[in-house]
Amino acid sequence: MSKVAIVGYGLTKFSKDDFKIESVLINATKNLFDSTSNLNQKDIDAVLVSTNNNSKYLSAILSEMMGIQPKIAHSVESLCNSGTNSIVAAYSYIVSGLAELVLISGAEKYDSPGQILEWDKLRGQFKHPIFWASIFSKSYKRKYSITDEDIALVSVKNHKQSKNNPNAFSQISVSVNDVLNSKKLTDDLRLLDCSRPCTGGASILLASENIYKKFTDDPIWITGIGQKTTSASFTKNLAFHTMESTKQAALSAFQMSKQNPNNIDVVEVHDAFSVCEPMALDSIGFTKLGEGMKMVKEVYLTENSKINPRGGLIGSGHPLGATGIAQTIEITQQLQSKAGKRQVDNANVGLIHNMSAAATSSTVLVLEN
Amino acid sequence: MSKVAIVGYGLTKFSKDDFKIESVLINATKNLFDSTSNLNQKDIDAVLVSTNNNSKYLSAILSEMMGIQPKIAHSVESLCNSGTNSIVAAYSYIVSGLAELVLISGAEKYDSPGQILEWDKLRGQFKHPIFWASIFSKSYKRKYSITDEDIALVSVKNHKQSKNNPNAFSQISVSVNDVLNSKKLTDDLRLLDCSRPCTGGASILLASENIYKKFTDDPIWITGIGQKTTSASFTKNLAFHTMESTKQAALSAFQMSKQNPNNIDVVEVHDAFSVCEPMALDSIGFTKLGEGMKMVKEVYLTENSKINPRGGLIGSGHPLGATGIAQTIEITQQLQSKAGKRQVDNANVGLIHNMSAAATSSTVLVLEN
Repeated sequence: MSKVAIVGYGLTKFSKDDFKIESVLINATKNLFDSTSNLNQKDIDAVLVSTNNNSKYLSAILSEMMGIQPKIAHSVESLCNSGTNSIVAAYSYIVSGLAELVLISGAEKYDSPGQILEWDKLRGQFKHPIFWASIFSKSYKRKYSITDEDIALVSVKNHKQSKNNPNAFSQISVSVNDVLNSKKLTDDLRLLDCSRPCTGGASILLASENIYKKFTDDPIWITGIGQKTTSASFTKNLAFHTMESTKQAALSAFQMSKQNPNNIDVVEVHDAFSVCEPMALDSIGFTKLGEGMKMVKEVYLTENSKINPRGGLIGSGHPLGATGIAQTIEITQQLQSKAGKRQVDNANVGLIHNMSAAATSSTVLVLEN
Repeated sequence: MSKVAIVGYGLTKFSKDDFKIESVLINATKNLFDSTSNLNQKDIDAVLVSTNNNSKYLSAILSEMMGIQPKIAHSVESLCNSGTNSIVAAYSYIVSGLAELVLISGAEKYDSPGQILEWDKLRGQFKHPIFWASIFSKSYKRKYSITDEDIALVSVKNHKQSKNNPNAFSQISVSVNDVLNSKKLTDDLRLLDCSRPCTGGASILLASENIYKKFTDDPIWITGIGQKTTSASFTKNLAFHTMESTKQAALSAFQMSKQNPNNIDVVEVHDAFSVCEPMALDSIGFTKLGEGMKMVKEVYLTENSKINPRGGLIGSGHPLGATGIAQTIEITQQLQSKAGKRQVDNANVGLIHNMSAAATSSTVLVLEN
């Protein structure tokens, strides 16, 4: 069975622009074509689109606009981890032999319908993600004696790091006080604790072992895949201070890649809200449960950007269907030593954590150079 | 690499009922569970949903409602061939080793947003599929000297056959005159030439070679897969009297399965409109180009139901995301000799043709017992 390499990528700036979804898909994909050697439309066997947008047939539309006539073409949707789901689908098409080269494009508009959890309103009208994030925050703080000041550091760090990411939505520095004094949304959540829905696109190109050399001298390999969906409703979570689906996805990804948390040099975790970063770090197994915040602090104080180097979702913005792909591109660039000012030293093994709806579903990928 | 078997299935009645999309998914899946031996929720590695519905996170919702906690869970959308696209995705998950057992559920409501081709309005406001179907009809009739009376026979045959299908939307007989005298929608299309959008669901269970025996003594194997997307806009078609994407998909499926049209005992073709049936038959290669209508007539006169035994889309109804899965279930039942009054003699090799938007995208599957 073929190994699967990442051989190209393209991003748009993440913004509040009111572009049409088709334009976002096309702009990210044009950037991929511009930066990938020897890429011919005829070589592309499959075109997958990752989005929560309501438009139909977007993979065929993107294909037509780009001059591609693929064998396989469809959209993939699983809310906020649509992006990594589409990467896993592409991986399977290559390993199963149905495709050699797969283009994936993720895109979202700032007003995506995926931001409202229509089915998850056991708590009356509270169907916006900030309500599960509030419960996570309260629960994590109480369980592990963590303060609002502690958690605010996630936003400070990620805003700082996003200033080195020209595609990031945020280009400002914020202090702990700025976070604590930003608009109070709930008892446990301020505006600067939240990632921002935005317009953005991310395209990535996956190739089989047979053909990757045509496109790059520096392939990045997908060596570990783990996924788990525990429920759709956040109230079905067994606990609100830990991410069960993330734990299980990480175990699978480590098992498949024969790696472990100690070997991971750089990581993208899904900080949809600030509390999610320490929770994800300890659920993945980088630290004991409850010690994720300690890890964030240590990394921040040593000026190491190994956690969410592009600024995470909080700094970069969160265009839902593009996020998992943008995370994967960041780790790819890090492992290729092409991350510019964001570059982490000696990055050889990286990990992506992408999740949906209060971690009711998680994907974990391990990449290696 | 594992072979992939169909080991279970469940359908709902196709109707104009205003059920919620979640209910349709669940009802089809409950029917699958009720009719499949030894099926335990814990065994299911992936849950895919095929639909054009705008609701998000449906694979997680279906999983939660059915008590499944899958590794892989996402929706697949490619308009009217979403169903077979999701089957191909499931096939890949199994062959690539990421899954052993995959549940797929397709569902649609009668008012699906997939019925309007928003992007394909070069002809002003004419963005409903009846407009491409009119052009196909006019072009095919002119090119091959075929009459309205000829084409009406497709509808007569498929309405007749759907009377043996308890899940079909239509349970009435129609004559050639009934078709010709039904409401005129365009110069070349009457109401009874059209499949009806409806509410319906179809679930199917795919298993690896390692585990299929747990669920069935009568596995049906997916031996051929072909897919092609030539464009998104029907005006990009090179010709309107033939289906280019279908030709290419059929070639790939025959090559992979080492079968050819002469070996196919029973076939489901995508008769979204009556002209599509003969066009598909000759594009797949069952006859010379332009002779598909002759084949329909011959089969009809010999009272053989080998073409669209369940009544096709015209007789059964067309719940977009469910259609490709319902077609695949029909061929599975035929190859298992479990099709009741619809049973075709000596059915060992079957073919499914499922397409989108004026055959701008086609999937062809070959199944064998």
